[in-house]
Amino acid sequence: MLFESAALERLVEAFRRLPGIGKRSAERLALHVLSAPADEAIALSEAVREARERVRRCSQCNNLTEQDPCAVCSDPARDRTLLCVVEQPAGAMAVERGGGFHGLYYVLHGALNPLEGVGPDELHLDRLTRRVREQRVAEVIVATNATAEGEATAQYLSRLLGAEGTAVSRIAHGVPMGGGLEFADGLPLNHAFDGRKRI
Amino acid sequence: MLFESAALERLVEAFRRLPGIGKRSAERLALHVLSAPADEAIALSEAVREARERVRRCSQCNNLTEQDPCAVCSDPARDRTLLCVVEQPAGAMAVERGGGFHGLYYVLHGALNPLEGVGPDELHLDRLTRRVREQRVAEVIVATNATAEGEATAQYLSRLLGAEGTAVSRIAHGVPMGGGLEFADGLPLNHAFDGRKRI
Repeated sequence: MLFESAALERLVEAFRRLPGIGKRSAERLALHVLSAPADEAIALSEAVREARERVRRCSQCNNLTEQDPCAVCSDPARDRTLLCVVEQPAGAMAVERGGGFHGLYYVLHGALNPLEGVGPDELHLDRLTRRVREQRVAEVIVATNATAEGEATAQYLSRLLGAEGTAVSRIAHGVPMGGGLEFADGLPLNHAFDGRKRI
Repeated sequence: MLFESAALERLVEAFRRLPGIGKRSAERLALHVLSAPADEAIALSEAVREARERVRRCSQCNNLTEQDPCAVCSDPARDRTLLCVVEQPAGAMAVERGGGFHGLYYVLHGALNPLEGVGPDELHLDRLTRRVREQRVAEVIVATNATAEGEATAQYLSRLLGAEGTAVSRIAHGVPMGGGLEFADGLPLNHAFDGRKRI
């Protein structure tokens, strides 16, 4: 046996389930946790537990938050007529990092993917439509990822919300094709917002 | 603010302290933990806590273990006249993965590094000497990393244990220079054991 510790094996397995962490990396992380100062390891364990307990989805924008509605949705300084639709919380985080957008967000927690069984119902697009209508959103900026699913979602939202008379635009320049929004830097993301096109 | 959740920030910080995890990776891991099924997150938190509670150092070889002495030290089938000295538990794990070594281990948890204040006392080399003497070890195979510190440690052990009349050898072939032992594959490690030289 490589490990003679069931606890160590479980720790390696838990790390392997994280995205981008292979077998060797998981072993390295697990051994680090065991050799690091005890308070560092306890801090990691507590941080995971606490984050799961405290962080939930904002009832208005679906973004991750400790308070409901979230700080962005409840900030009176934000422009309520602009709504940026992203696939994941990481996307909203990347746009915030850019610092050029001052409207509100809507996090889909996914993208349309019929082959995987993800349709408009799974993304709760009816709630998005309702929000756009009730808050009198003037423009929806679709910042879904530059992937087939992200593009399909953008097209669908254009038809869905365009039928409501809402302007729908798509960020265009600076987001590398095929990549997730969270890998884009602040400056290219700002350009992408400036260069958005009506769809 | 990028995150409006102190719990999420703490989680990102805890991930960033892990080796090889930068800011973006830490954010990605933290967001994954929050979107993953709850039991997966709880499993990670529990695995870290449990591993720290249960895993300690073997009183004989210093390797990480839940039982003391560890499974290798208490295995009657292992050759007690051969002792392989490694810097870290990951090194012992790599050698075990090779499957060609059937002696016992001694884990230094470091290497000599005078500039960092790591000397023979910090590595508890007196305990290693005592073990070699008491167990009548015939050969000590030094498998410290192929770095300046690892080589210095090997030379020091050669003098220290050679003075006791013990044969001291150094693994030689197949371990990439400058790299940690844990990155070597099983086969090159077996070659390194076969091609060891007296030092």
